[in-house]
Amino acid sequence: MSSPAIGRVDRRKARTRAALIAAGQRILADRGTTEVAVQDITDEAGVGLGSFYNHFTTKSELFEAAVFDLLDAFAAGIDAARADVQDPAELVAIGIRSTCRLAATRPAVARVLVLTGPEFLVADRGLAPLASRDLRQGLASGRFTLARPALALAVVGGSVLAFLQMRLTADGSGSVTDADADLLAATLLTTLGLPAAEAAEIAHRPLPVLDPPPGPTPQGEPS
Amino acid sequence: MSSPAIGRVDRRKARTRAALIAAGQRILADRGTTEVAVQDITDEAGVGLGSFYNHFTTKSELFEAAVFDLLDAFAAGIDAARADVQDPAELVAIGIRSTCRLAATRPAVARVLVLTGPEFLVADRGLAPLASRDLRQGLASGRFTLARPALALAVVGGSVLAFLQMRLTADGSGSVTDADADLLAATLLTTLGLPAAEAAEIAHRPLPVLDPPPGPTPQGEPS
Repeated sequence: MSSPAIGRVDRRKARTRAALIAAGQRILADRGTTEVAVQDITDEAGVGLGSFYNHFTTKSELFEAAVFDLLDAFAAGIDAARADVQDPAELVAIGIRSTCRLAATRPAVARVLVLTGPEFLVADRGLAPLASRDLRQGLASGRFTLARPALALAVVGGSVLAFLQMRLTADGSGSVTDADADLLAATLLTTLGLPAAEAAEIAHRPLPVLDPPPGPTPQGEPS
Repeated sequence: MSSPAIGRVDRRKARTRAALIAAGQRILADRGTTEVAVQDITDEAGVGLGSFYNHFTTKSELFEAAVFDLLDAFAAGIDAARADVQDPAELVAIGIRSTCRLAATRPAVARVLVLTGPEFLVADRGLAPLASRDLRQGLASGRFTLARPALALAVVGGSVLAFLQMRLTADGSGSVTDADADLLAATLLTTLGLPAAEAAEIAHRPLPVLDPPPGPTPQGEPS
């Protein structure tokens, strides 16, 4: 057991780390770049410059932690919202539709995802493990017929990432919408092996409500 | 008409710009980051620090030019190699298979593509305009049935990007190969609306040989 004094130190360290990570998330979301000085991060976090190096070796390490903390929490939220769903096809559809909606419901989180790029698809944290599990389950149950899990993940994950990028940069004329997100889910279910009519029906079921995803809420954005 | 003296100045300016862009391409490919000092770029280019600002306002501007110069040239190479192909389905298949092979034939270019991330899918230069044209042609001719060009581009472009990322980070155990690139092309053609057997046949035709793509050739990599 640790003494109360140690406990206080640990709690303070944890608070400093959390403040740095939250600062990293806000910087990514607001400025869309990791090209900032360490001092900018500690200023944003309201902590001393030196304390940065008690927690992180490099800026990249901080930003990676900032991104994956956000994505872990978002993935946990999707998982909780789908607790009553058994069908792997519907699990995948909810994952696709919920993630595509991030661009509208929580653009800051969507921007972080797009900025991280395809790297998050090969990570062992965040959304990739959730997507991999869903896809393998669908394959094992015979629901999906695309026999290479890596390709299934590339198609599903890459398409969602590209969709988010399009939605964030749409100028209105060629913009993609929630309806397109559902159409994308239906399309990807047919790619995985479902008949088109069944895929469309599953991709248009009522979508479970997610808890508001965590993460930065820039000015003017509903929290 | 410009005088010979002006011509010499213009040629020198063009050489400096080209040297800076080539330096940016090598830095992206070798170091995998844009987080370098302007001085690093001018040192790599063998030009004076001050000349950077005669050509670019920011590092981002230089790196954007470096990426799109590379992708424009690669897209032109694909287009030239497919000059005798009429069928939009085969045009798309060649584009997918050639781009996926970049990870093996020219990893430096593939790394630049992945580092740029989904942003290149919404650009008006590089591979996106080529892919958009192919997809719209296939739709207009009735060859493809996925009726939203934006979704078709998200699925095709996003999948290829994710495939490249997987191939570049594969540790051997779950690695994706040229055969998977062809399977991906076949899968995506069925997503666009082709019957599975026809898609598979088209995605396994002999692939036209591309001129070696331009761009950085890191040490030890065949040029």
